[in-house]
Parts: sequence; C-alpha cells; structure tokens
Amino acid sequence: MGGVVIQNVERADATIIAGLAKAGVATVHEAQGRRGCLAPHLRPIWPGAAIAGSAVTISAPPGDNWMLHVAIEQIQAGDILVLAPTSPCTDGYFGDLLATSAMARGCMGLVIDAGVRDIRDLREMGFPVWSKAVSAQGTVKETVGSVNVPIVCGGQAIEAGDVIVADDDGVVVVRRDEAATVLASAQSRLAAEEAKRARLAAGELGLDIYDMRGKLAQKGLRYV
Amino acid sequence: MGGVVIQNVERADATIIAGLAKAGVATVHEAQGRRGCLAPHLRPIWPGAAIAGSAVTISAPPGDNWMLHVAIEQIQAGDILVLAPTSPCTDGYFGDLLATSAMARGCMGLVIDAGVRDIRDLREMGFPVWSKAVSAQGTVKETVGSVNVPIVCGGQAIEAGDVIVADDDGVVVVRRDEAATVLASAQSRLAAEEAKRARLAAGELGLDIYDMRGKLAQKGLRYV
Amino acid sequence: MGGVVIQNVERADATIIAGLAKAGVATVHEAQGRRGCLAPHLRPIWPGAAIAGSAVTISAPPGDNWMLHVAIEQIQAGDILVLAPTSPCTDGYFGDLLATSAMARGCMGLVIDAGVRDIRDLREMGFPVWSKAVSAQGTVKETVGSVNVPIVCGGQAIEAGDVIVADDDGVVVVRRDEAATVLASAQSRLAAEEAKRARLAAGELGLDIYDMRGKLAQKGLRYV
Amino acid sequence: MGGVVIQNVERADATIIAGLAKAGVATVHEAQGRRGCLAPHLRPIWPGAAIAGSAVTISAPPGDNWMLHVAIEQIQAGDILVLAPTSPCTDGYFGDLLATSAMARGCMGLVIDAGVRDIRDLREMGFPVWSKAVSAQGTVKETVGSVNVPIVCGGQAIEAGDVIVADDDGVVVVRRDEAATVLASAQSRLAAEEAKRARLAAGELGLDIYDMRGKLAQKGLRYV
Amino acid sequence: MGGVVIQNVERADATIIAGLAKAGVATVHEAQGRRGCLAPHLRPIWPGAAIAGSAVTISAPPGDNWMLHVAIEQIQAGDILVLAPTSPCTDGYFGDLLATSAMARGCMGLVIDAGVRDIRDLREMGFPVWSKAVSAQGTVKETVGSVNVPIVCGGQAIEAGDVIVADDDGVVVVRRDEAATVLASAQSRLAAEEAKRARLAAGELGLDIYDMRGKLAQKGLRYV
Amino acid sequence: MGGVVIQNVERADATIIAGLAKAGVATVHEAQGRRGCLAPHLRPIWPGAAIAGSAVTISAPPGDNWMLHVAIEQIQAGDILVLAPTSPCTDGYFGDLLATSAMARGCMGLVIDAGVRDIRDLREMGFPVWSKAVSAQGTVKETVGSVNVPIVCGGQAIEAGDVIVADDDGVVVVRRDEAATVLASAQSRLAAEEAKRARLAAGELGLDIYDMRGKLAQKGLRYV
Repeated sequence: MGGVVIQNVERADATIIAGLAKAGVATVHEAQGRRGCLAPHLRPIWPGAAIAGSAVTISAPPGDNWMLHVAIEQIQAGDILVLAPTSPCTDGYFGDLLATSAMARGCMGLVIDAGVRDIRDLREMGFPVWSKAVSAQGTVKETVGSVNVPIVCGGQAIEAGDVIVADDDGVVVVRRDEAATVLASAQSRLAAEEAKRARLAAGELGLDIYDMRGKLAQKGLRYV
Repeated sequence: MGGVVIQNVERADATIIAGLAKAGVATVHEAQGRRGCLAPHLRPIWPGAAIAGSAVTISAPPGDNWMLHVAIEQIQAGDILVLAPTSPCTDGYFGDLLATSAMARGCMGLVIDAGVRDIRDLREMGFPVWSKAVSAQGTVKETVGSVNVPIVCGGQAIEAGDVIVADDDGVVVVRRDEAATVLASAQSRLAAEEAKRARLAAGELGLDIYDMRGKLAQKGLRYV
Repeated sequence: MGGVVIQNVERADATIIAGLAKAGVATVHEAQGRRGCLAPHLRPIWPGAAIAGSAVTISAPPGDNWMLHVAIEQIQAGDILVLAPTSPCTDGYFGDLLATSAMARGCMGLVIDAGVRDIRDLREMGFPVWSKAVSAQGTVKETVGSVNVPIVCGGQAIEAGDVIVADDDGVVVVRRDEAATVLASAQSRLAAEEAKRARLAAGELGLDIYDMRGKLAQKGLRYV
Repeated sequence: MGGVVIQNVERADATIIAGLAKAGVATVHEAQGRRGCLAPHLRPIWPGAAIAGSAVTISAPPGDNWMLHVAIEQIQAGDILVLAPTSPCTDGYFGDLLATSAMARGCMGLVIDAGVRDIRDLREMGFPVWSKAVSAQGTVKETVGSVNVPIVCGGQAIEAGDVIVADDDGVVVVRRDEAATVLASAQSRLAAEEAKRARLAAGELGLDIYDMRGKLAQKGLRYV
Repeated sequence: MGGVVIQNVERADATIIAGLAKAGVATVHEAQGRRGCLAPHLRPIWPGAAIAGSAVTISAPPGDNWMLHVAIEQIQAGDILVLAPTSPCTDGYFGDLLATSAMARGCMGLVIDAGVRDIRDLREMGFPVWSKAVSAQGTVKETVGSVNVPIVCGGQAIEAGDVIVADDDGVVVVRRDEAATVLASAQSRLAAEEAKRARLAAGELGLDIYDMRGKLAQKGLRYV
Repeated sequence: MGGVVIQNVERADATIIAGLAKAGVATVHEAQGRRGCLAPHLRPIWPGAAIAGSAVTISAPPGDNWMLHVAIEQIQAGDILVLAPTSPCTDGYFGDLLATSAMARGCMGLVIDAGVRDIRDLREMGFPVWSKAVSAQGTVKETVGSVNVPIVCGGQAIEAGDVIVADDDGVVVVRRDEAATVLASAQSRLAAEEAKRARLAAGELGLDIYDMRGKLAQKGLRYV
C-alpha cells in the first residue's frame, strides 16, 4: 500500500504571505477567530525567527524520514515543510544535510511534530525549525509515506498550500482561501492595538478602556 | 456565583523583598527549610531576570483572562502577578498589551501556571514571565474569577502579599510574616557558602569539609 | 543495605575521546548503528557546549545528592559525572558549589536524569549540564547509593568508563571498548557528508544523489 | 464572533456501520491502510463496549460544555457525540444528566478529548465513553462553540457524518464515503485471519506462514 | 531541621461527612462553587469505593514513607490519610502491611499524590486508595516529614480535619467549617437533578429545560 | 546494518522462577535491595495475572513489529517476551494472532514498552500483557531489529534469560544468576511479614513494632 505525492498545489499570493509573517502568530490567530494555533509543544530551536510560507505537507511513518527527500523536490521558493508522523515520535528526522538541500530549493523553514538534530548547524545556517523535540536519534528510509496530502500537525488539520506563520510564540495555520481576509483583519487589529498600547502605557486601565466594570458587576464580581 | 476581589492586602517590607531577590531562589528555598519551590515546569520566557515582589494572586477559569484586567488595578509598585487557572490550561493569557498596562502600574513580572504570548515583545520590554507554556492560543473574557484570594500555583499554596522570588532556577514563595526571618537565614547561608566555595575551588573535597566519611561508612558504603 | 564505590575504572584513550567530541552526538550515534542516544528530555542548561569524557556513574536515591560528594573524589581529569536516580525525580541535586568542586578535579560536565540549580552560575562558570529539569528544590544527604556501578540514564545502560558525548543535540554513550571503532566510522561519515553537502547546496536532490527513485517506485509511491 | 450549528448532515448506511462495529477498531484501522486511529490517550471508562455510529462533532471552549446541549438536539438514532476542546482540557464536560438526554435521543456513546464524570452512573446506564480523563471538575455555559463542523479529535481530522468505531482498543474514524469499501476490506481481513489463527494455534510460525525468512536474511539478520 | 506532628485536630460532624459521601464527588464539587477537585491523575486503584472522612495530612520526602507510620497513630475512626510528597514521586509508599495497620485504627482510605503497591491485597481487603501511580518501587525511612500540617495534594490546599470525599470520579476536599453548608447545597442539587433527569429521559431537551435558546442566539450562535 | 538473533540463552531453574512468581513483584523487588522495578507506566491490560518467566528480549524499531515473529521462534515453554522499541512508541505491536502463536510455543506473557491491541481477545485468551499503551495503531515489517540482546525496558537493563516477575503491581527483573538468592531472601521476608501483619491487625503500631520513636526524636520530630 504505497504513498502518494501530490504535485500541483496552489499557493497563496506572496504579498499576502509576507503580510501575515509581519503580523505574527498571535495576531493572525486572533484575526481568524482564535483558530488555527498548533499545539504549544512545537517550539523554535532558536529564538527570533519569524516566517510565513506555503505548506508542503508530509505524512511520514514513525522513525522514517524518507519522505523528506521526496518532499524537498516539491518545494517552491517560499515554502515551509510541515511534517506529521503517523504516530507520536521524537526521533531526529532532519539535520544539516537536509536543511542544506531544502535551503537550496528556497525553503523558508520546517515545522515538525517530531524531533530534529544538528541544531547548532541549523542555527548557524539561519534555518528555522519548530519541533516537538531535539533528538540525535536517527531514522531509516524503509517505508513510504505521502507528500502534500491533508495532515494533522500539532492538533491542526493542514492542507498543502495553506499558509503557515511561525515565530517565537509558535505556529498558526491559515487556510489558503482565507489568507487575504485574515490579513486584512490582522492589520485592523494591529492598528487598533497601537492606540490602546499608548493609553495603557499612560496608566489607563483595561477595565476602563474596554468598559468592563458594568459587565463584571453584572456577572457578580464583588470587591471587598 | 460571582468572584471576589480582595483590595486591602498587606505587603512585606520593600527592603526585605530586595534582599530576597538578591539571595536568589535556591538559597531562599533552602533558608526556609527546603519549602516553597513552585513546580519546575514554570520556566522563564527569557534568561537572566531575577526579581522578588509581593503576590497579587489571580484565580481564573481555563481559557479566560478577564481577571488579569481586574488584577492590574490592584497592583502596587513592586508587585508580581501570580495566576493559577482553576483547571490545567496552556492558553496564552497574557501578552504585550497587558504587560504594557502592568508595567505602567509598577508590576515586576508575572508567574502563570498557564501560557503566555508575544514573548519577543515581552523580552524586548524587559518584562519577565515564568510560565508553564508559550502559546499564541487566545482567551475569552466571559467568566469571572477572583483576585487576591488564596491560590495553588505550581503546587504551592500562595496568599496575596506573600513574597515571590523568581530567577533562572524557577520560583519560590515566602510567607509574608516569615520573610524577615528567611532573609536573615538566607544571608547566613550565603556567607557560609563563600568560605566553602573557596575551599572546594582549591580542590578540597566535600567529603572532608562536611566530615562525611564516618557517617557514610556507618550507613554501609563500601569502597572496592 | 549499603552502597558501593568502585574505584578502579578503566578509561578510553584521551585522543579518541577528543575525536568523538569533535564528531558530535548525531554523527557518533549514526556511526555506531543508530545506538546509544539518551532520551531527548535531557537538555543542555546553556547552548553551545560540546564535550566528551569518561563516565563516572552515580546511582542515587530520589531527592538525595549525597553520592555526588562521593563521586567527585573518583573524578579524573576529563571525566563526566552521570547521575541516574533510582526512581524518577526532578529535584535540584547539583549547583554551583558542587560544580566548583567538580571543576577543581578536572570534571568536564554533568549528565543527570533529574534536576539541577544555580544555572546562571553554572553558565557563567562554563560548566555544562544536560538535565531533565531545572529545579531549585533541594535534596538531603541521608541515604547511600553507589558510584561507578552500571546504571540506566535517559533510557541507556551506561557503565563507568564508557565515553559520553554531549552537545546541543543531546547525549550519546559509546562503549569504552568500541570507542576507537566508532571514532573511525564517525570520521568516515563526516568525510562522506562533506561531498554530499556541496552537491545538495548546489541544488542536486537527495532523490538523485542517493538513487532513491527506483526503490520508491517499487514500494508503490505514486506521483499525481 | 459566534459559533455555527450545521443541521443537515449525511450519514453512512446503518448496515455498513453495524458491520464496522462488528469488525472492531484494530481491523478497521488496518483495512483502511493503517489510517484513522485516534490517539491512545482516549480510553473507555468501562471495558467491553464495542460500538459504531455517525459522528456529531462538537468544537467547544476549554471548561465550557454549553455546546453539548446544542449538539444533543442534532442527534439521530445511532449517532456518536465527538467533542474536541479548542485547547487541551481535562474538565468533566459530561455526566449522567447529559447521558440521560443523549440516550433519550438514540445516542450510542461519546468520544471526548477531555474529561467526563459520574462514571459509575454511566457504567450502570450502559452509556459508553472514550475520554482523555475522568474528572469531577465542572464546566460553565458562557461561550458558544460549533456543532457539526470539521474538528481534530485525538489527532485525527473528523467531519460530521464520518463513521466512528470504538471498542476496548480505542477509537478509529472512517470517512463516510469510504465506509463501504473499508467494510469490505475489513471482512476480507477477518476471513483471512481465521485461517492463519488456526495454523498459528497449531504451532506453525509466522516466519513460515508469511514466508519471512528470505527477506530477513536479505536485510542482514544474523542468527548466532 | 525536624518535622512536626500536630496532634489535636478538629473533625467535622460524622453525620455531615456521611451525607457528603452519599452526595458524591461531582455533586459536592458543584455544590461548593466548582472548587476543591484534586487533579484527575489521582485515580482509584479499584472501582466502586465511595467514601468521605477527615483528612490526616502527611508531608513526606520523595521516596520516604516513614511519616506514614507516624500518621497512623494519629488516625481516629473515619479518617482518611492524605499524603503529598515534597517533590513529585511515583514510588510505592504504601502496601498491605500499612493498610492492615491503618484499618485496625479505623482508617477509611488513602489519597496519595505518589505510588501505592500490593494493590491486589488492598482490593481484597477492601481498602480504597486514590493514587497517582501503582508502583512496587520501595521507599526508605530516613528523613522526617510532618503530619497534620497544611499540604497541597493534587493541586489543592488541604488542612488536617478538612473533609475528603472520594469515589470513581476522583477526590474533592471540603473545608471543615464549610461542610454543613456544602452538604445542604449538595442535597438541594440532588433533589433538583431528580426532576430534570426525568424530563431529559422523556426526550425533553436541555436547551428548553434550561431556557438556553435566547441566550445562545444573543451570543451569536447560528444554525445553518 | 542488520540485527542479530542470539539463540542459546541460559534460563534460571523453573522451580526458582515459580517461587518468584508466588512471592510477587513488590516482595521480590525489596528482597533484592529495592532494585529492578520497571517504570510504573507499564500496566497490565487486565487485572489478576501474576507470572514469572525467562526473558526473551526484543529490540525493535519504532512502529515495526517484525522482530516479534522472529522472537516467537526462540520461545521455550515458560518464557516471557520483553520488547523495547529503539525510540519511544505507543503503536500496537502485538494482538491476538501473535498471542495465539506465542501461546502455542508456551509463552507466559508479554512485557512491552509500547502499545498492544486486541485486548479484549487477549483477556479472553488469558494472555497477560504489561504495556505502556493500548493502541490499535498498526505497525510495519520493514526494518530488522535484534532478539536476545541486552535491552533497556521501562528504565531497567534486561538480558535474555533474566527472570521477569509481573503482577498487578507492575514488573521487576531479577538477574538470572541472582535468582536463587533473591528467592531465598523473598521467602524470609514473607515469613517475617506474616508475624508483623498479625500484630498490626491487632492494632499495634509500626512505631512500636519497628522501635522507631527514639530515632524519630533524634531526627528532630516534634509532637505539638
């Protein structure tokens, strides 16, 4: 029972993707109705990276990284590899050689619900990874999986071509056909936050800015 | 069944608090009889911060950060927000806007047995947080909780006005009325350690400095 | 029922150990047939250290660090302390005083399937630790354990004198009598990787370099 | 930003569903290419139940069970409630009153990636539940979620109307439009297993029945 | 630094305690405002027990069960032992000999945020335990702890003499001086539930019984 | 790099093994100096089994159960299969067909630091398993491992031919060459416990039976 590689994947517009990267994970997540956050066990292997890109999805067996080689051929400039093992695994699927290859194809980074290794090299190369674990434990190349099929990664359903946004706060997925709307909403939020930040910095309270006192009293909050 | 906000909370003396911050978490914990350490899953979102302050406690529902707005009004300069959800949660209750507001009130930092977000901003603002998770997953403002009631955070019972000490080793709580005694004991320990450090650095063994050989033999330790 | 300290432990050759440190954890692990990696919950308390040394093993009761004092006397220059508690524990067994003492004896670092504290001091002293937790929670000195007996640490069986290699990717153990063979194999791998890295950086695909296309087709991988 | 209830959901044929229940989770999972198993942390609250039914999906906030009341109205005889919280939660969303209501509507059981309570009552009522936790911790009814939208539960993407099969081995999801094919494949497997079971019980080895010796030798397995 | 045993502990009235046992954990927890549930990792070692009693609290070092012997002397008929280790531990602190001794003193059961062993014997003796783990791993008797001091167990602050209620749903604590009020509230809830159960069993919906439709619409819930 | 099957494995004497089974896990563990307990996450899939046997060890890749077929050929009557994956895995390696085959060869049971499935069948067949998980998730047969090599399972180093004892309390390993001594010690403990049990049941305190009061006072325990 073999796997499948889906080759023609539509991507979102590069300008929209760039806008989402700039807005950042927390804002994008709020802008689409508090949806799409991948589980917080996916952490960056080095701090400071903030990227967005189109998902090249990978479904791989536990402890088998063969499909990463297959997926790298499917990368277009600006893509992000997103790997979900078919059962929980912390093995180190990805290291400096695969990163070298992925970067040569224009890959922006990797999101992997498993392990990664050679992290000092990856940091020096500037290749960002969000992973569940750092592990030197190697993998085999024996069993096929699939590329660009729908996967669940970090508890979120992801399709090839969906937009992945990742920064120090974690990872969020935006449906490809909602990306423009989400970006617009995110930019509105950012503008609105600017004004609030100034008032809060001046010592004004959220209780007053957001007019919460009446609603709190109505819910029964008592001051003693 | 509404929540409650307790407004008049006694704090420990600022000089004592400053002394505890300087002594650090590990020493303070030992000085009070190896008590008071919060669970080690509470980790700093950036390294190097070392603070102490009076606890403003928050009991909040899972996925609901409304009470943070309420708590910020109760902050006095030098306080630390300490939030425990009423059931386990990793959502991002707190980000840069709330930090801006808290800092404007003189808040020293946040200890939260849940998630936090906008961590790059918080690092740049110099606002320290000890949390269970980093998560962009947003929260709602629908259900009231309580402020300055006794809580359990990281496995320790904490009352409003207790002294919280936090650094790279984690977080420890000191009862308000024991703070002076604990500080004195901590300072004695630090002085005693200075002498021991010099001897150990010179190659002397703990086995000899602490006179352990006889007791080890008595307990049956054999050298082969 | 007392413990035991085994005093005469054979070590591997220092040149071999240095070679293994240079090869790094991931390569050494591959070079010995994907064996020997300690569990990925053992993480460095500060990034960048890359060491190798001979294991001084410690079997210690939960929450009792007495045997660390005993073990430090057994250290020879270039050794690494490796501690496994007899049941799972996150307490802070080790801090700056013990590190001062261990460094004075020529210790290279600590691998501990439990907690460590004073991590800011350890970072400043340049003493590397791979641990399961950071915790200020103190320990007692009441119950004896053993030194240089076989232990299981991070899921790997380790004997005194085995070579421990540790870097940002984690920790791997190499049997003392296999160290020379593993080093040779690791060096071959590194040489082979150099050539592949250049080809991958030039955009050539792993699929072609490793001649995978036929085997993938044979396993049923379909492109659609 | 309110939730949504999708009311017209297509179900699979009742005969097919009954066949899948009889085949059981492990066989169904194999029959569809080792896909669809929910995470093993979803365990039955009492042993022996073996059901299948059409999914009524629920996306609910952490600690808020309001949508269960909404979902129960959408139940048709033979359905299974499947609840995924929008962030990890162990609270007890469901107990004997909701079970009474669900059973009155013909509900077969509940799969919930969170907690359940009143489990003694549920066992006595014969209402089966697969949950992540047993917890008496109550929930609120403050925030709306959605019913019959696509969810991710136990790491699997599930749509309303998909077939859920659950027994002592856990839970598996079958796409509605694949249910007939999967059933046919499952029934073939069961027939084939019968013959193999007899041979294995007679002492014949899998190595011979499946003709593995040559392939093992080819992969390098050595007998010493 | 020795421990302490507090000998004179006030208990709640036996009739109230019996009433709370009958109401059960989930109802008692709701009756006191959704407070007091111990963490759901505390599970019964055999199903069906449903008890309540006054807490004899124990603070014990990790891997050291000495204080259980001390605590047993403090037991009065109807008491429940409640043990919290000073740092996380899964060792088997308690087995059939201690249970024999505790039962001889009138002990109702044990709640322990650690491990227990001899569970087949305990089941046959009818001695109920709620624990974090089952583990044969033994403990020592080297370090003193304290009895009847305030502890945190399963994430709840518990004082000696507080009422512990435990059944298949887990464990809840009721403050001694609130026990009568909580019982009254629990009994009201049970009465109210009876009527609702009948209506739900007859097919009436919670949406109608609790008059939720308007409020749901107001929060934005849409039916499509 | 292929695996290896070691064929000539010495076993302990059957009478000794039977004696260890009767003594039970907790007593055997104490009798050998509180050593040898496997981690408590290894739980029986049905209660009441109490077995001992000689270990046939299996080192298997994650998600690959091929070596179980190889191992079954190595079984002698009275053996226990002990499987450790080379990296953490919860997949269901073993079900009713393999159990049928293993039972036909005289296998007593399975200890597996991974998942198992068909647990209702296994219960009905009376085949006992101690596992980390129950999971229907299937495995492949692509990569070779090894049989009867030293492994680490549940945190304990185990060699082929070591004696495994398992019951409701978990699993313990006894070195083959220590089995007779451990049995003798276990039987002494059981005899001594009988007398103590009678005294404890009569209400005598462990404090007095074990003469603990003086030592407790010396360690600083105070009664108030």
